[in-house]
Amino acid sequence: MGEVRVIGLEGVPEVRPGDDLAGLILAALNRQGLQLQDGDVVVVTQKVVSKAEGRLVDLTTVEPSAFALNIASRTGKDPRHVEVVLRESARIVRMDRGVLIAETRHGFVCANAGVDASNVGPGSVVTLLPEDPDRSAAQIRDRLVAATGADIAVIISDTFGRPWREGITNVAIGVAGMLPIRSYVGCQDPYGYSLRVSNVAVADELASAAELVTGKLLGVPVAIIRGYDYPRGHGNARMLIRPAERDLFR
Amino acid sequence: MGEVRVIGLEGVPEVRPGDDLAGLILAALNRQGLQLQDGDVVVVTQKVVSKAEGRLVDLTTVEPSAFALNIASRTGKDPRHVEVVLRESARIVRMDRGVLIAETRHGFVCANAGVDASNVGPGSVVTLLPEDPDRSAAQIRDRLVAATGADIAVIISDTFGRPWREGITNVAIGVAGMLPIRSYVGCQDPYGYSLRVSNVAVADELASAAELVTGKLLGVPVAIIRGYDYPRGHGNARMLIRPAERDLFR
Repeated sequence: MGEVRVIGLEGVPEVRPGDDLAGLILAALNRQGLQLQDGDVVVVTQKVVSKAEGRLVDLTTVEPSAFALNIASRTGKDPRHVEVVLRESARIVRMDRGVLIAETRHGFVCANAGVDASNVGPGSVVTLLPEDPDRSAAQIRDRLVAATGADIAVIISDTFGRPWREGITNVAIGVAGMLPIRSYVGCQDPYGYSLRVSNVAVADELASAAELVTGKLLGVPVAIIRGYDYPRGHGNARMLIRPAERDLFR
Repeated sequence: MGEVRVIGLEGVPEVRPGDDLAGLILAALNRQGLQLQDGDVVVVTQKVVSKAEGRLVDLTTVEPSAFALNIASRTGKDPRHVEVVLRESARIVRMDRGVLIAETRHGFVCANAGVDASNVGPGSVVTLLPEDPDRSAAQIRDRLVAATGADIAVIISDTFGRPWREGITNVAIGVAGMLPIRSYVGCQDPYGYSLRVSNVAVADELASAAELVTGKLLGVPVAIIRGYDYPRGHGNARMLIRPAERDLFR
């Protein structure tokens, strides 16, 4: 019987800049009596990764540009927040109706270039996305593998909106130890038909599954997914970014 | 400890038009020794729903229009397949580089208006999306609740692509017995900040989680998700469709 377990990791303390996030995860696993096993996927939410890496900006130190002031006055946003968003953006995809959809330097397309004010702490501090979420995932994975000996995958997740559909869902912004996409190219269905859908973004599906236990208000920043036979290989989240020349919605 | 289980339901036989899908699910649950419990989410893939509801078209009976022939000649597609896609479309969102992204009569935006040739059977038969996937979900739910007494939710899932990101993921196209979106409007993070992200499309995340056990080649068209405290209420998948006036990507 196929069964996948999505286990919330409790007891990860409040993360601060410079903290050893992998160490905090190992300690929490230990307290929960959980041992990592070969084939586990450890999903870590972006916010704690950004905090541990010191990807924080105090808005009181930010001088908004004329453009940021202009946008802010039209949208009612904090001009210093807009300024940070612009600094994190490689390209503005849409700027309308109070929403700013930007392409980040990593190539992700998301609201406010991933700059976020929630769950950071009191005051006027915002978080940025990790500088290189794939590297963050690889570093956490290296530490967890070294400490436990288990051959695991690590995903850094964030919540992105999407066109046409309401609500946000979790996606993978960093991946290590697995391929993020399961390819059915060349596969046939039980009738011998070639499959229409040839690539499934399983890293995004794993990130979404993890959100079921990490939630926004649960204080659970890490999930362990057990029992899923993910595609093995050296992958990263850049593989999930559609190249510009094949993107109909740039 | 928060834990969500995603259980693949095996032993659902090949579904044919007119089959009692709820009855097949109940029989498979029984064979697998699984009893539905209050709070379970039963995720059923679109393909078996469409088959049971007879939403099949034999392409040999389809006369392509001049427009369908024109598109087909430019894209190398089967003109009869294109014709069926056009009949299922309320609006073409993008038609470029061999891809046809359409808005269906339900309001979903997806490739080929959900018309699919895979996993149907030999010959030239394609499936259409269910006429009313929310009604399909409600009908299956009514039957499962009546037979088991368990207060459950039902999701009909399909695999959709998305802009900017590679690969497809499962989303909810039909929902019954739950609210598809968890709202954090008015909620504050542990620091008293209002949450930036106020609505999470949990029905889509549940659909994605289910795909981890239903897969494309696994012959498992149904998943049971156990242990997730979904938002209670009378919801449907139409709530997941962003109204045109708030959609920046029409």
